[in-house]
Amino acid sequence: MQGHQPDQLSQTFAALADPTRRAMLAQLSKGEANVSDLAKPFLKDMTLPAVTKHLKVLEKAGLITKTKEAQWRPCKLNGDALRDAANWMEQYRIFWEESFDRLEDYLKTVTAKEKSKGKKNGRKK
Amino acid sequence: MQGHQPDQLSQTFAALADPTRRAMLAQLSKGEANVSDLAKPFLKDMTLPAVTKHLKVLEKAGLITKTKEAQWRPCKLNGDALRDAANWMEQYRIFWEESFDRLEDYLKTVTAKEKSKGKKNGRKK
Repeated sequence: MQGHQPDQLSQTFAALADPTRRAMLAQLSKGEANVSDLAKPFLKDMTLPAVTKHLKVLEKAGLITKTKEAQWRPCKLNGDALRDAANWMEQYRIFWEESFDRLEDYLKTVTAKEKSKGKKNGRKK
Repeated sequence: MQGHQPDQLSQTFAALADPTRRAMLAQLSKGEANVSDLAKPFLKDMTLPAVTKHLKVLEKAGLITKTKEAQWRPCKLNGDALRDAANWMEQYRIFWEESFDRLEDYLKTVTAKEKSKGKKNGRKK
């Protein structure tokens, strides 16, 4: 949207805005993996360059890091960027808890109505 | 990235991947506002069509809703989409708590070292 480099938080959210990239994070949440193992399940739906591009987006957003300790450079999930995004969301918690409360209130009303209906029907029999 | 309509979660994250849109949500978190009041602070940096476009992205992602009860159709923040995104993030909490723990461990070690240094220096005097 803007000419300059996007801020870190925008980069994180943009990286998360794709089901393939979220699936890659889900895979890495089970443990470190090298690029070829990580790519394998996605190669039935897309090309290797497409997979690599997704990994680069995740890496640039700081969501994954390639460790340099081993020859095979495994990828690992990096929680820091996710924490920042989660912290940003946390300030809005009241809004989703509110809407959940409204749903709960609604369900209570419906259940109460159903119960009273049930009783009335019971009396009729 | 894909030819078809993006899934709800991707739409939410994409909508959050912009500082202007996050600022709009921050403004709405203080209470309902009509479009012109909501747009006002952003018009010094962008055009009205640009502001309207951002609002449409937020609306399409379900992050804001325009209530229809009043003549002036105020916008309000809708917590449901945020809750789904936060729930998705929640499964990765262990990763950012882990990295926070590592930082904490590191700080403890540093503090312990500083203390023992302090004691040694104290003895020397």
